[in-house]
Amino acid sequence: MGPHPAVAAIRLAVRRVLHDILNDQTSRVRPGPQLVGAHPDRTPERPPSPLVIVACSGGADSMALASALAFEAPKLGIRAGGITVDHGLQPGSDLRADEVVLRMRELGLDPVESVAVTVGREGGPEAAARDARYAALDAAAERHGAAAILLGHTRDDQAETVLLGLARGSGIRSLSGMAAVSGADGRYRRPFLQLDRQTARKACMVQSLPVWDDPHNADPAYTRSRLRHEGLPALEKALGKGVVEALARTAQLSRDDADALDAWARQAEASVRDAAGLLECAKLYALPPAVRRRILRRAAIEAGAPAGALFARHIEEIDRLITGWRGQGAINLPGRVVAQRQGGRLVIRQG
Amino acid sequence: MGPHPAVAAIRLAVRRVLHDILNDQTSRVRPGPQLVGAHPDRTPERPPSPLVIVACSGGADSMALASALAFEAPKLGIRAGGITVDHGLQPGSDLRADEVVLRMRELGLDPVESVAVTVGREGGPEAAARDARYAALDAAAERHGAAAILLGHTRDDQAETVLLGLARGSGIRSLSGMAAVSGADGRYRRPFLQLDRQTARKACMVQSLPVWDDPHNADPAYTRSRLRHEGLPALEKALGKGVVEALARTAQLSRDDADALDAWARQAEASVRDAAGLLECAKLYALPPAVRRRILRRAAIEAGAPAGALFARHIEEIDRLITGWRGQGAINLPGRVVAQRQGGRLVIRQG
Repeated sequence: MGPHPAVAAIRLAVRRVLHDILNDQTSRVRPGPQLVGAHPDRTPERPPSPLVIVACSGGADSMALASALAFEAPKLGIRAGGITVDHGLQPGSDLRADEVVLRMRELGLDPVESVAVTVGREGGPEAAARDARYAALDAAAERHGAAAILLGHTRDDQAETVLLGLARGSGIRSLSGMAAVSGADGRYRRPFLQLDRQTARKACMVQSLPVWDDPHNADPAYTRSRLRHEGLPALEKALGKGVVEALARTAQLSRDDADALDAWARQAEASVRDAAGLLECAKLYALPPAVRRRILRRAAIEAGAPAGALFARHIEEIDRLITGWRGQGAINLPGRVVAQRQGGRLVIRQG
Repeated sequence: MGPHPAVAAIRLAVRRVLHDILNDQTSRVRPGPQLVGAHPDRTPERPPSPLVIVACSGGADSMALASALAFEAPKLGIRAGGITVDHGLQPGSDLRADEVVLRMRELGLDPVESVAVTVGREGGPEAAARDARYAALDAAAERHGAAAILLGHTRDDQAETVLLGLARGSGIRSLSGMAAVSGADGRYRRPFLQLDRQTARKACMVQSLPVWDDPHNADPAYTRSRLRHEGLPALEKALGKGVVEALARTAQLSRDDADALDAWARQAEASVRDAAGLLECAKLYALPPAVRRRILRRAAIEAGAPAGALFARHIEEIDRLITGWRGQGAINLPGRVVAQRQGGRLVIRQG
């Protein structure tokens, strides 16, 4: 008899990603052609077995991920490690981190460590915690020479992320959620992005893995928590049970669409600049609005406007210099950037 | 003292659209160059003043729209008419339609009429009612030679439409909601698409216009009604009051993006076909996934697959013949359409 379906599902998801990591490794360190027998006394150097680290909070998703990594990695000649980040946001969080370290050791992960971080305030509590966490994970990956870090985000997390992006109303890039592969050199991998939270939880249960429910996840002070416990259930009640899956699919499709349009905009940008490098209004006008607005956004960011402070309405206002020209004056953008039309050219620069 | 802000808002929205309609009329029937004084005895024919019809259910949105049209149209030399559709779905709906006709007459609209339709069952009750309604409106527009038909959809309706599209998970086209201008020759116009429902209701109140609340709108048997009364409020509670506006902006951005990508796909399609008109897999492979999938979708529809039955997973399966080729067999699609790879070509046809 095979493992419980939930355990089989988490293992399959991890196995697939480990295969991808191995393939990427091979294609990256492919050796040059060698003369067979040229150095008969020297055995060809075997590359050290790669290390894959799971980022584990002790919650059900990442505990399930840790267990599947511990099970699958050895079969593929991969070393499996684990790291837990102590955000220091709750009393006793250090003890909790020690406990997670212990559990990861029991699963057979090695190396295993706990890293304490200091969470700032920039961008709100959730963003600040995330920034601190990823900085710590990046550092750990470098320190251990890890080939990849696995993150336990599930399809439910993805659906929530899409809704959070939707609430910004800033276009399809913000609907594209989290990528299955992200970070420097594709360091971060999310094996569970197509798996539901319930399956991860079930896999922990049937493997008798104790899990920790982060009280933050149920704290209505957090937007994501409200979304998870009230927003999404209400949406499911209105629209049917397929909502989470539909949102996750929307993420993937939106990501591909946004990538294609960004590529188009990059390519088109060169063709709408004059010899002096200025944007020509007539040529911008001839582009599809979706492409033109992406060029305008890139130009504003290049001029020094902070991407996070640049909203759709700013871009629309710049766009009206092209499509609704009636002699309007300079437009003030975030980061002291100014956009104005001068002699058929669009000039965007820091004022 | 000017009108109440809500009344000013609905009138401004209608005035803008009436200007657009006049501009479109002028550019469409622009006469050829005339020799001044060539026919001194013949006064140049003045085009008859155009007719704009409001589609009015008697609800707050369309009553507000009717009142604003009645107020603004005469000032622009436009004739304002009204039509109400009796769907025959509730006992006494004919009396209700007569009442709406009376109210439209009181507003000074002329011509005014009520049209009874028979609602079928195809595609569910909401889709069937919509199909019958638009068929009746199209016929009325032809019969009266109307330049445009105004529809009372508000920003809230738009937000609901985006969420309904999101629930399909079929990509950004289904997130693009309702267009401000649609139908044959841009016949349908939605002046209130950027106006919230509350403003329309308020405008009726301060103008002492009686409004009718369609019980269907509160009937939890309807998906849209559940969304309106439970789904969206819960989402607003979780994400903040800006959700409706964000959804409406997402609609506009998604529409522009989808238009640009469709245009790219149309253009790219010619370049990936061989001399015999067959799709070349190698060339398809080189395209961005977003463009390739749109070409595949178009090809499947062209071969006879019904667009409404063709889901993202179908397209993904065809796509794997290109990106994940391992000798798989023919793929069955809706409408007895079969897709298969043969000698480096993708063949999609009715089996």
